Amino acid sequence: MEVALYPGSFDPITNGHLDIIERASKIFDRLIVAILVNAQKQTLFTVEERMDMIREVTRPHVEVDHFEGLLVDYARRRGVHTVVRGLRAVTDFEYEFQMALTNRQLNPEFESVFLMTSKEYAYLSATIVREVAQFGGAVDPFVPPYVARRLREKFQNRRKT
Amino acid sequence: MEVALYPGSFDPITNGHLDIIERASKIFDRLIVAILVNAQKQTLFTVEERMDMIREVTRPHVEVDHFEGLLVDYARRRGVHTVVRGLRAVTDFEYEFQMALTNRQLNPEFESVFLMTSKEYAYLSATIVREVAQFGGAVDPFVPPYVARRLREKFQNRRKT
Amino acid sequence: MEVALYPGSFDPITNGHLDIIERASKIFDRLIVAILVNAQKQTLFTVEERMDMIREVTRPHVEVDHFEGLLVDYARRRGVHTVVRGLRAVTDFEYEFQMALTNRQLNPEFESVFLMTSKEYAYLSATIVREVAQFGGAVDPFVPPYVARRLREKFQNRRKT
Amino acid sequence: MEVALYPGSFDPITNGHLDIIERASKIFDRLIVAILVNAQKQTLFTVEERMDMIREVTRPHVEVDHFEGLLVDYARRRGVHTVVRGLRAVTDFEYEFQMALTNRQLNPEFESVFLMTSKEYAYLSATIVREVAQFGGAVDPFVPPYVARRLREKFQNRRKT
Amino acid sequence: MEVALYPGSFDPITNGHLDIIERASKIFDRLIVAILVNAQKQTLFTVEERMDMIREVTRPHVEVDHFEGLLVDYARRRGVHTVVRGLRAVTDFEYEFQMALTNRQLNPEFESVFLMTSKEYAYLSATIVREVAQFGGAVDPFVPPYVARRLREKFQNRRKT
Amino acid sequence: MEVALYPGSFDPITNGHLDIIERASKIFDRLIVAILVNAQKQTLFTVEERMDMIREVTRPHVEVDHFEGLLVDYARRRGVHTVVRGLRAVTDFEYEFQMALTNRQLNPEFESVFLMTSKEYAYLSATIVREVAQFGGAVDPFVPPYVARRLREKFQNRRKT
Repeated sequence: MEVALYPGSFDPITNGHLDIIERASKIFDRLIVAILVNAQKQTLFTVEERMDMIREVTRPHVEVDHFEGLLVDYARRRGVHTVVRGLRAVTDFEYEFQMALTNRQLNPEFESVFLMTSKEYAYLSATIVREVAQFGGAVDPFVPPYVARRLREKFQNRRKT
Repeated sequence: MEVALYPGSFDPITNGHLDIIERASKIFDRLIVAILVNAQKQTLFTVEERMDMIREVTRPHVEVDHFEGLLVDYARRRGVHTVVRGLRAVTDFEYEFQMALTNRQLNPEFESVFLMTSKEYAYLSATIVREVAQFGGAVDPFVPPYVARRLREKFQNRRKT
Repeated sequence: MEVALYPGSFDPITNGHLDIIERASKIFDRLIVAILVNAQKQTLFTVEERMDMIREVTRPHVEVDHFEGLLVDYARRRGVHTVVRGLRAVTDFEYEFQMALTNRQLNPEFESVFLMTSKEYAYLSATIVREVAQFGGAVDPFVPPYVARRLREKFQNRRKT
Repeated sequence: MEVALYPGSFDPITNGHLDIIERASKIFDRLIVAILVNAQKQTLFTVEERMDMIREVTRPHVEVDHFEGLLVDYARRRGVHTVVRGLRAVTDFEYEFQMALTNRQLNPEFESVFLMTSKEYAYLSATIVREVAQFGGAVDPFVPPYVARRLREKFQNRRKT
Repeated sequence: MEVALYPGSFDPITNGHLDIIERASKIFDRLIVAILVNAQKQTLFTVEERMDMIREVTRPHVEVDHFEGLLVDYARRRGVHTVVRGLRAVTDFEYEFQMALTNRQLNPEFESVFLMTSKEYAYLSATIVREVAQFGGAVDPFVPPYVARRLREKFQNRRKT
Repeated sequence: MEVALYPGSFDPITNGHLDIIERASKIFDRLIVAILVNAQKQTLFTVEERMDMIREVTRPHVEVDHFEGLLVDYARRRGVHTVVRGLRAVTDFEYEFQMALTNRQLNPEFESVFLMTSKEYAYLSATIVREVAQFGGAVDPFVPPYVARRLREKFQNRRKT
């Protein structure tokens, strides 16, 4: 059974991420969506909130997890050799190449598989979604309804405090 | 009468910005130079200082304004549908595309028009200008004399404190 | 009255070209779609066929013309100072920059204005359309129905001969 | 059983192609290496020579085939939904995106999977190999020994005629 | 004494090439401008015409030569280990990298040194110069007076025949 | 005697930097590796630690220094006109161009020379090295043994505190 990891910040999960999850699910038997936790980087949502949102909007066969440290170490602990990455028109290819080659150097068994996002989400990023939500813009074309609601709540609470 | 917005940080306005303002003024009947105010981002000059410098170095028919929040919301309040952006050799095209498409998604009437900077300013940016000024380098080839003077004053005051 | 030129090969006109024509028509009072005729370059459709297709699928206020030689010379003859170019995700920016700067050098009054294609047509090109049509693929998502019919006829005649 | 297509010109097959075939073989149960035959494009080796070389240097579980026309049509005839493409530092991303999105438009079931070549072959291409071989340079670091021999024979015969 | 090769098509030599020759002359003791002769590629000027133009517009300490075949073989015959390449805003970096790495693979002693063209010539290419000259445009800002005259003669003779 | 500057952060020096130092040493008679000290930017190693590591892993003819402020001012004080920069597959060309052109504007005598890193280090950066070391990954393929030891010590001390 072919298992693959789909790592990322998912702050929050967008329709673009969901599109890649759908595509990867057709190629791999099982998919682990893994939130990379970086203690030094500030995020809008906590790890728990991000895991909750991913679980809410993906199907049961998708496992949701999180990890700290090097991706190759986490993959080794999970016994997985394949990582999935989404390519968009705004992908930072050089960064992706750098990470893929570094991971391959750290673990030669490690393989990176790139899938292409739907044209509809080619320019979408979680950063854009957060910016639009922060100023009360409508994020409905960019994220699932559940995530849109969580974004509205998050910024309403922020404004109150 | 065709009106266009030219948004940016203008921290400070450079000869490259002025070049785009000149070019846009030939195509559009009226131009609003609008400073995007981002409370979370630190700037060298205050909004007032930046507005003062733009007014000082542009012609009377150019209106100077500032706004917070989403560009599409500000444009709607002003009744403007067209935004002008400068393209340079160092333009981050992907970011420009991402913003233009997001704005179009938020308001389908919204159009982004890209003009090309003169070869002379193809590699100029406000960041470079600030870095050169900070270490006492000559910024005269990069900004109008009035802005060069304000930059010198700004860093002289900083050194005193 | 602000007039603009929209030059290209249009071999044949695609939905992406039409999208730019629509957008340019909102900014400029009059638009001249001008086929660049290059005797050394082989095309699928003759100039007459290409002009016929553009006329058929654009509105009456769009003028259709063709020219040989330098764009700046043609523009001077027509008394136009502004050229419109479409930006796509697959745009060859460097080539566009090179042409725009060369034209500006040849005629300093000349201005290039870049508009962004709809996300839907971000990866569309006339080359792709010709390749798909050549092998009998369905070109309906890429070109107007009239052009799709002409493409089918063209390749049917080719196969007969 | 997951089957994937690896299409290309393979004129001739290089160590970079072999590297992608190895990597794809770990992810997919079966791989079809399919030579795209384009009657209008001149090649160094005939289809038969190219098929022979691929067969000689790949393992038995790799099927070698060729096709004319649209990739999506060939894939449909073979009952395959997944195509493998190699990403190198010199990949023409925009072209790859354009093809992948066009194929998806022509057949929504169609998925493109991108794998990254080894660092060792990041700048290798069949064009470079042909150029080096043409002038009698040593192609041994770039292709398997069998292909190197066939290249030498090809250019020796050319010089004789 | 440090010698360097500056290879290219020089069809014809432009102000951009001359700018690189000037810059390279400050770093290296001697410079060989070497025309790469490719029998399969059609050029506007013959090798003799191109050598004549380069000699006419460069200083005496610049040697002008031509070669066929692989650059590394020619460099070895000349006893030179360093090649100079010009970087422009429109440089095809991937191609430059590919050639530099292939040359290094063919001869590990071989080093490629990249210099940056003046801003003034950042978008200039011999192709653009030929296109402008072909249609009778003024090439004076792009090439030395002697080359401008040769271009005018070339196209006048062509029109007569 | 031709002297060149090789400026950078070197936080820490990697095998990629060493590769460029080797290549530059063949072209220039003397090389000054100069650490750019930026008081506002946080680094992993102090200037003293970085100078110590560079001295430890380079040959005696390489001078190690550091400077604050503008590169052109430092170069003028040192009487040097040539700066060496490494090009990698992940190089930010636009930034390099911007810096090179700004430096040339500030001092027209100033020349930037770009050398290409070995394929082996095409995707290596000090940032990647710090990230791998931070999580206890093996950095031996990326830096000399002495630097690998200093990285391990640095992060062991950090964990204790």
